[in-house]
Amino acid sequence: MTSKHESPFQVLKGVFHEPNRLAILSELSAASNGMTFQELKDECGLTDGNLSRHLKALEDTKVVRIRKTFIKNRPQTTIFLTDRGRDKFMEYLQALEEVLARAAESVQAEPRKYAFSFAARPARS
Amino acid sequence: MTSKHESPFQVLKGVFHEPNRLAILSELSAASNGMTFQELKDECGLTDGNLSRHLKALEDTKVVRIRKTFIKNRPQTTIFLTDRGRDKFMEYLQALEEVLARAAESVQAEPRKYAFSFAARPARS
Repeated sequence: MTSKHESPFQVLKGVFHEPNRLAILSELSAASNGMTFQELKDECGLTDGNLSRHLKALEDTKVVRIRKTFIKNRPQTTIFLTDRGRDKFMEYLQALEEVLARAAESVQAEPRKYAFSFAARPARS
Repeated sequence: MTSKHESPFQVLKGVFHEPNRLAILSELSAASNGMTFQELKDECGLTDGNLSRHLKALEDTKVVRIRKTFIKNRPQTTIFLTDRGRDKFMEYLQALEEVLARAAESVQAEPRKYAFSFAARPARS
């Protein structure tokens, strides 16, 4: 559930709603050991500049953590979803599902087989 | 299903994804006889200027039709979802559901009781 005082449409106004960010978050959510910059770039079909810009915004809001290391003298950037990021993303997904449910009702879409439960749960280790 | 050549994230880059527009479309989808400007403004919690701007964009892309009439010498604006608008919104909702399903898989959300079928269907009269 979203906050009592907020419509689900309001929740969509946060940091996750931009389509490329949704793709980034969706990838990172599945990667408990993080992803390299290159992996994330390839999976999301983004340019260096575009991915960098999104990651900067996501790091500023503490949604991702960025680790820079050297592997055989070559720099490597690894990106991790933070616990806070996971929780916030869950909230966003809940709101999105609520918006989808409302729209489905409006367009009289027929119920299908399943939906998702985005209740907060412990971060995977 | 979204186009074979397009990722669902790409489909989200269209005219519907902005949260206020989603609210507008959700309202209009349920209103087969259209809604007045005032009704739409109230339901979506928007200002005159903000709603006007969104409607202009949606009219330009032929998603809505705007009718201006006089009721007892007072101007009244009524907004309708077009058939094209309904079809396009359905496509958007399908993509959104696909994105949600991917995210659910990524965050290991548990299946719940239902989902929606946004298959194209005849516009309601």
